[in-house]
Amino acid sequence: MTPDRDITVQEVGPRDGLQATDIIMPTQAKIAWIKALAAAGMPQIQVGSFVPPKLMPQLADTAELVAEAKKIGGFSISVLVPNLRGAQNAIAAGADQINFVMSASEPHNLNNVRKTREQSLEEFAGIVAARNDTPGAEHIRVSGGLATCFGCTIQGTVPEADVFHYAEQLKALGADKIGLADTVGYGNPAQVKRVYRHVVDMADDLPVGAHFHDTRGLGLANCFAAFEAGATTLDGAQGGLGGCPYAPGATGNVVTEDLVFMLESMGVRTGINLDLLLEARAVMASHLGDEPTHGTFVKAGVPKGFTPATAI
Amino acid sequence: MTPDRDITVQEVGPRDGLQATDIIMPTQAKIAWIKALAAAGMPQIQVGSFVPPKLMPQLADTAELVAEAKKIGGFSISVLVPNLRGAQNAIAAGADQINFVMSASEPHNLNNVRKTREQSLEEFAGIVAARNDTPGAEHIRVSGGLATCFGCTIQGTVPEADVFHYAEQLKALGADKIGLADTVGYGNPAQVKRVYRHVVDMADDLPVGAHFHDTRGLGLANCFAAFEAGATTLDGAQGGLGGCPYAPGATGNVVTEDLVFMLESMGVRTGINLDLLLEARAVMASHLGDEPTHGTFVKAGVPKGFTPATAI
Repeated sequence: MTPDRDITVQEVGPRDGLQATDIIMPTQAKIAWIKALAAAGMPQIQVGSFVPPKLMPQLADTAELVAEAKKIGGFSISVLVPNLRGAQNAIAAGADQINFVMSASEPHNLNNVRKTREQSLEEFAGIVAARNDTPGAEHIRVSGGLATCFGCTIQGTVPEADVFHYAEQLKALGADKIGLADTVGYGNPAQVKRVYRHVVDMADDLPVGAHFHDTRGLGLANCFAAFEAGATTLDGAQGGLGGCPYAPGATGNVVTEDLVFMLESMGVRTGINLDLLLEARAVMASHLGDEPTHGTFVKAGVPKGFTPATAI
Repeated sequence: MTPDRDITVQEVGPRDGLQATDIIMPTQAKIAWIKALAAAGMPQIQVGSFVPPKLMPQLADTAELVAEAKKIGGFSISVLVPNLRGAQNAIAAGADQINFVMSASEPHNLNNVRKTREQSLEEFAGIVAARNDTPGAEHIRVSGGLATCFGCTIQGTVPEADVFHYAEQLKALGADKIGLADTVGYGNPAQVKRVYRHVVDMADDLPVGAHFHDTRGLGLANCFAAFEAGATTLDGAQGGLGGCPYAPGATGNVVTEDLVFMLESMGVRTGINLDLLLEARAVMASHLGDEPTHGTFVKAGVPKGFTPATAI
């Protein structure tokens, strides 16, 4: 963490938000949004994902976005990758952080990447090796992420022992960070606190990330619980983009603006300027067409007498 | 707390929700809603408020609702009162719990009930005396409630020392319960946890209630924080009724369905059946006209493999 920040908020809207929308946001619009996020002080932005464009045409411009993001500067550029090939593309593009993701749930992993969890671990080992063996790639951080840590739409309950086991394996294989995700919005704050306490303890000096969906309204409560348990990176998507197809009208990712407001009001410095963050949201919204957006801070604004923790 | 319940959820929609709406819900519709809530196992329902009907025509039928609620039975009937006269009406009507409320913020109290906080304390002393001196009223619980505990739209920041002082005074004057309210949705979970820890400790064996608004999306996070700090009653309004007039489109009270889902998924028994709670919401919604409703659980339903803590 920098001296100016107590926690890292990562904006994942350009990846997790847009991949769930029906629209394909033009590359220039994404760049304008990322510029506005950078101007607001967003410390980390997940600009896209290296997956086959046929599968996810919304994110086909990820390499270009990484290049443009490097020109903007001032934030860590992360990309999601499901396999070694995606990681090789990320290294070639010049991303700062590779967010590998596999599922804690075996059927979800089989469904999502057609691999067993053990096979995904092998893939992760290959990714770490590729980073290590590529000259000039030493500075790239490789994050080992687990999806469906708090429940799975296929399997239902996911045993906490599975989460702990695969988190340990990712660490043992050389992860620079451990990420846990509530991919489908199943988690509750008591569970979140319990699981994070264990994983934060296991992770030692590695940062631990938290990624929640607000499908059942518990996204911010879960963020608070994860923060209390020691999570050091919290993900959000502006406007709560990324709604679940099984829950029409439900919000998707935690709303970044609401998350940053919560942290700043708690006295936790995010390094983000809330006014400029709302401007970034407006830039995004202007390119969304009829896609629904969510969030309460954008409607209510700051309380009277409010002082953000981040002094800008 | 009963052996079947770990916490008490209080539905305040018929009072706090409806008082903020433009419509006047017909008495028969309110009764149908209250019946449906009782059928779902709601342990406590705030059916109305004894305030002058001229000021709040939406709640003019409170005495009739108390009488009808007694016929339904099976739950604790609470009413809100701002003064002795309201309490006398509540005693005469036969309410089980009188929820007195004054503001922790002096200008808010002056604005709301045209009394200083000291004058409101005197009023509270009179209410306790009225309960004590009325034959047959011994079983009525008098709750001492503080509004604007986490911030005020007039004053801005409300010193925590003020909250602690007036909570202590209410206890000293004979309150059977202490209630803290985030009337305008200013609170954050770190503050909530800190304030509740202190007040729960001060309250000794008295129950401590929590009433949050979701104006800035932090309602459930604040409920979790209050629960962790030892609050024993949590308020909600079905559909998040009670939106703030200063925040168009923002939710009002914490959404009861989302709150109950959170608690049940955490393993905390509310005694409430979630399916029947959604039926009660539908009864309410059918009488709301164009009033907006909120909430995510109603859209997303339970996760796969979900087992509620309350076995019904």
